[in-house]
Amino acid sequence: MKKLHILDSTLRDGAQGEGVSFSVSDKLNIVKALDNIGVAYIEAGNPGSNPKDIEFFERVEQIELKNAKLCAFGSTRRKNLKVEEDDNVLSLLKANTPVVSIFGKSWDLHVQEILRTSNENNLELVYDTVAFFKQQGKEVIFDAEHFFDGYKANPEYALEVLRSADRAGADVICLCDTNGGAGPDETFQICKLVVELFPHREIGIHCHNDTGCAVANSMLAVAAGAKHVQGTFIGIGERCGNADLSVTIANLQLKQGYDCVSSDLAGLSSAVYAIAEICNMQVPNDRPYVGLSAFAHKGGMHIDGVNKCSHSFEHVSPESVGNKRRFLMSEVSGRTTVLAKLGALAPELRKDSPETALIVQRLKEMEHVGYQFESADASFELMVLNILGRFRPHFKLIMYKTSGEYPSPDGELSAYAMLTIEVDGKTETAASLGNGPVNALDLALRKALTVFYPEIAKVHLTDYKVRVLTAEQASAATVRVLIESSSGEKTWTTVGVSTDIIEASWLALVDSIEYFLR
Amino acid sequence: MKKLHILDSTLRDGAQGEGVSFSVSDKLNIVKALDNIGVAYIEAGNPGSNPKDIEFFERVEQIELKNAKLCAFGSTRRKNLKVEEDDNVLSLLKANTPVVSIFGKSWDLHVQEILRTSNENNLELVYDTVAFFKQQGKEVIFDAEHFFDGYKANPEYALEVLRSADRAGADVICLCDTNGGAGPDETFQICKLVVELFPHREIGIHCHNDTGCAVANSMLAVAAGAKHVQGTFIGIGERCGNADLSVTIANLQLKQGYDCVSSDLAGLSSAVYAIAEICNMQVPNDRPYVGLSAFAHKGGMHIDGVNKCSHSFEHVSPESVGNKRRFLMSEVSGRTTVLAKLGALAPELRKDSPETALIVQRLKEMEHVGYQFESADASFELMVLNILGRFRPHFKLIMYKTSGEYPSPDGELSAYAMLTIEVDGKTETAASLGNGPVNALDLALRKALTVFYPEIAKVHLTDYKVRVLTAEQASAATVRVLIESSSGEKTWTTVGVSTDIIEASWLALVDSIEYFLR
Repeated sequence: MKKLHILDSTLRDGAQGEGVSFSVSDKLNIVKALDNIGVAYIEAGNPGSNPKDIEFFERVEQIELKNAKLCAFGSTRRKNLKVEEDDNVLSLLKANTPVVSIFGKSWDLHVQEILRTSNENNLELVYDTVAFFKQQGKEVIFDAEHFFDGYKANPEYALEVLRSADRAGADVICLCDTNGGAGPDETFQICKLVVELFPHREIGIHCHNDTGCAVANSMLAVAAGAKHVQGTFIGIGERCGNADLSVTIANLQLKQGYDCVSSDLAGLSSAVYAIAEICNMQVPNDRPYVGLSAFAHKGGMHIDGVNKCSHSFEHVSPESVGNKRRFLMSEVSGRTTVLAKLGALAPELRKDSPETALIVQRLKEMEHVGYQFESADASFELMVLNILGRFRPHFKLIMYKTSGEYPSPDGELSAYAMLTIEVDGKTETAASLGNGPVNALDLALRKALTVFYPEIAKVHLTDYKVRVLTAEQASAATVRVLIESSSGEKTWTTVGVSTDIIEASWLALVDSIEYFLR
Repeated sequence: MKKLHILDSTLRDGAQGEGVSFSVSDKLNIVKALDNIGVAYIEAGNPGSNPKDIEFFERVEQIELKNAKLCAFGSTRRKNLKVEEDDNVLSLLKANTPVVSIFGKSWDLHVQEILRTSNENNLELVYDTVAFFKQQGKEVIFDAEHFFDGYKANPEYALEVLRSADRAGADVICLCDTNGGAGPDETFQICKLVVELFPHREIGIHCHNDTGCAVANSMLAVAAGAKHVQGTFIGIGERCGNADLSVTIANLQLKQGYDCVSSDLAGLSSAVYAIAEICNMQVPNDRPYVGLSAFAHKGGMHIDGVNKCSHSFEHVSPESVGNKRRFLMSEVSGRTTVLAKLGALAPELRKDSPETALIVQRLKEMEHVGYQFESADASFELMVLNILGRFRPHFKLIMYKTSGEYPSPDGELSAYAMLTIEVDGKTETAASLGNGPVNALDLALRKALTVFYPEIAKVHLTDYKVRVLTAEQASAATVRVLIESSSGEKTWTTVGVSTDIIEASWLALVDSIEYFLR
């Protein structure tokens, strides 16, 4: 297989995307996910730019990476400082990563208008900085910023910049379409020329999606001989984003026989959803390979065709990327899907069992009001058991009341909750303060339940997500709450929907506890 | 200028997208919007497939089109019927459009497995159907379904299918990548070969986005000599969608000098938003050219650069596509960004003014606890005015209390809120029921404020978003609330952060009203 090196820049270029903001622990979780997928490099931030990145580089040293090398990102030295006296250069060194990416100007317009120095001086900045890091024993990726614009404006100078990096010993020379404006044919032609001029160096490509061509341009650069591909795993990045690596890798690995990542792409979908979750981004249904609609068939003709001969209507198999085929708006397919999902829970059910029809019917009703069971397996199981008459609730809510007030009665804690539950004819009332009404309700419920089920002390809520469903009604909107819980050994997710966020949270909370008690 | 013919298939292939469903009047509105933009052809449906399309073709005749020709879509005749006896063919004729698109099989696998007929017979279906519509005086576009897969499997047969359509007089021979699996280089090569084989015919391209390459593939087909480009204006379509015409047209017309549509692309953004509105789709922020983030600058260095020389960081001017440049506030942006954003609000501030440093400092502190001002311009302005000592609040909260209960005391409405505010020494207390605590609080605040500021009746909340920031703490997590408000003429966004969702919503609500009252 033809080997490519993939550099993921979710934590650096991705963090430049609008609405993207990572905590240090978000960043550490993304590093782990990317290492699992098996990319070659993780570009993890600019240690000179803010204290969060400095903390990150300290903490990330405790993670043992199986596949990826960490890479810190920074610019060439400033024009009036010696390289060893430039703070940014030194903080890059302090990040203590095996690899550094150095970006430098390759468009003469930028040298003159932005850096405000001479073309000659810029060549020195590039040479000095790359040479410095090579002397320090680092692997160096030189990112030629605005290379395509630079090449079109002044090809001789743009290439001269690459020659400086080459002479200084850069391991990779990466051509960056920083403004994202390059078209597919020119990307191919220019990459081909550079590959031919620097046969002894690994040439890289870094595309942005401002013309909607980032994935194709990356592929064309590879067709022209590039061996190093930069992007972000779910495509986030400044303006219109970077090349979406999940799509680029799938195209190159599944369809063109390149060896991009060390893992099996059967984990592609779950990796994309996991990283999107950390970024709090919804994966669009029409996302290639991993989107909910990517293998969804609507027209009757297509469904017929897929049933006759699946590869006649699918460019790759959905399983090869961890996705699933779906048939839309079809009662029959509804049952097939539900049966597949039920699996071990109700092996006695058949496609024509009346219970199967009931479950499909109930599923449709609940989806209509805003439920979604794709990630809330625990709630789905409880719903099915309920329909089958096999669900016996472990407790019953008599009532709850919550109250919040401002100014807060107790400094930090702003909300009260009290509730009464019944278990086997015995009632228990409990109340709690909390730092919000949901937190207060959660604490009160645990207090009351512990009397009957001391084992629930083991259950912790590990994640809590809110999605507003009907934006047009603003403060009266319907919300969906997803709660992830863990008992230490097992993790499960439940869902609740209501116009009242407290009630939606309550419904998800109750499912979580019931699921655990089963 | 080099002329291209654009065919929009929003109403046909777009309608195959998951979740897309058009009423007849939706369809008529889309026809008008597309005609205004000035595409050459509007493929408007399959009159044989459903009664809604029949009604549409009757009503659309009353619209006078300035630029576009309407086109009805259908398949080659069925294998056991004469062409003039095939109902689908006849209903296509009855649609009474100047142009028809006929799709036929060009992949031998489909001929055998799906049509279940001989390769020879399929050539007759193609010939007969195209010839029939030419005799009827129609302009005929022949869509060669699965052409790229077909060519790769059996090139001789795939080309034979095109020759049948050619001999029967098809005006356009359109190569369809129906499964969306073709890569950029093969698309170019195959199109080039077909263009050379049929120099007397207009060759078309029809791409799907299953590999994320639909726009680039369409451009490469044009580079190879295709003169007819199919897609959907906002990219909707089966599975991962069709080639997004808004992006393809902008690339070809603004950057490669092709004449694609008769209108000025300064209307591109508004056309995309109008069509998305009819489709009930949200335009993603990172959409090329027209997305909210397409010309948004975040990194301090980029912002500095754009100010020095705008085209150095933008691949086209935002105005050329009816979009706007934006500067985003964030911890990675420095004083330059803040100054650029302040603009008219505080023209007296300089980079080295002490107030500028205070604002940047406060921004970083607030972002650290979870605020984000990128889209919350109104909250940002209030924060700045506050620091400059130029903010006088229009009301003061004395206290609020909210309460929720289950079972709900009033069927639908589950929450109460009461509050006391003070305006110029006078207090006002109000209460309200709501379908959740935030809704109740919103309603109570409006009641109380209306006494002093009757004009706030004009303010409506138009969007409400919740993001959970610290997932690890689950029900005790910090949440960020974004509220979008409108007065009918103007729209603004505000932000609030707290561990208590009610308090976070309150903070955003207060900013919204204060911003309006200024």
